[in-house]
Amino acid sequence: MTTISFYFDPISPYAYLAASQLDAIATETSCSIEPIPILLAAVLNQLGQKGPAEIEIKRRYTMLDVLRWADTYQLPLVGPPTHPFNPLLPLRVLTAIGDPRARWSATKRLLEAAWGEGRDLTVAAVLVGALHERGLDGEAYLQQAQDPVIKSELRQNTETAMGCGVFGVPTCRVGEVIFWGNDRLSFLNAHLLGTLPAVDEGRLQSLISRPASAMR
Amino acid sequence: MTTISFYFDPISPYAYLAASQLDAIATETSCSIEPIPILLAAVLNQLGQKGPAEIEIKRRYTMLDVLRWADTYQLPLVGPPTHPFNPLLPLRVLTAIGDPRARWSATKRLLEAAWGEGRDLTVAAVLVGALHERGLDGEAYLQQAQDPVIKSELRQNTETAMGCGVFGVPTCRVGEVIFWGNDRLSFLNAHLLGTLPAVDEGRLQSLISRPASAMR
Repeated sequence: MTTISFYFDPISPYAYLAASQLDAIATETSCSIEPIPILLAAVLNQLGQKGPAEIEIKRRYTMLDVLRWADTYQLPLVGPPTHPFNPLLPLRVLTAIGDPRARWSATKRLLEAAWGEGRDLTVAAVLVGALHERGLDGEAYLQQAQDPVIKSELRQNTETAMGCGVFGVPTCRVGEVIFWGNDRLSFLNAHLLGTLPAVDEGRLQSLISRPASAMR
Repeated sequence: MTTISFYFDPISPYAYLAASQLDAIATETSCSIEPIPILLAAVLNQLGQKGPAEIEIKRRYTMLDVLRWADTYQLPLVGPPTHPFNPLLPLRVLTAIGDPRARWSATKRLLEAAWGEGRDLTVAAVLVGALHERGLDGEAYLQQAQDPVIKSELRQNTETAMGCGVFGVPTCRVGEVIFWGNDRLSFLNAHLLGTLPAVDEGRLQSLISRPASAMR
């Protein structure tokens, strides 16, 4: 069975939007979903790049775009009480859930809680309550989230993701092929159905390796 | 008649992709197109942001994504001999073409020449030849491109675009509503057809003004 690796950080509203569509894609294409929590801030720090919410002119457009997508998907969108918020606690709690199916169930629930319902994922009780709603032992995972092994696993997953070419969230990976953004789910779906033309690696390499004749 | 303002810089392959689709949208929705050349580097400098081709890990994915779109649109994609290149000369030549319809015709031709055919837009003879093919006096526009008034107009257009909320290219603007990216042409089309739900400004303001509780 093909696996869709879903890299995300609950800081991103697009992770919520994409997660809402992924079950339908996985069902249609007989795939399984492996959610991999990663810390977007660490990725952006390494790239020396700002997130869309960190640039004022882009923040307005981004939120407008998010509302357009939420309306398109007919999803509720309230947004968390603060943004950006520190996502480490929910990221670690989700990392602590070893079973991919349970982790996916909890991932969807936390993304809905934050972006659909306006809950605060930095509050331990919110996380515990949301996990309980999915039949998971929230207190146990909350405790494990403090374990240095889990903290290290989150860092390692973020590093490994970048090694696979991930530079933003949400990103879906199927084998070595990645799809960045909620707005590339249609390419992901087509790839899984075998209807997305495979890009010739030589053609791609030729484009990537074009020399620069101007630098800023 | 509604006007679609199309902000672009030939440095961007997505400008080529979007331009190839815009006539069909304008015809379907009875709109006119006003192409506005702007200098992406000046926008990115002001935002303190890097372009997708300036981050190695993102450059590979971007070119892959561009090839996927070109295949989807069934467009040729060769790419310019150097990239990034200095786009000032083609930007100024296009700025010098006062008539919007002639400028649009020249814009499409130059984007095709660079991205579809692999021509070098930093070479004056290439620009002149491409304009001739569209029945335009390339030599005259090339001469005007050296005029300080035209150079200043390009700078002013870039500033004005940012004042309208433009932070990247290509961007389409209809009145005060903007759509960033080739991948938002379907939202633009729906907006023009009246089928994109209008986003409530209060809801948007509420999201934008959410306080940060964490900063990098």
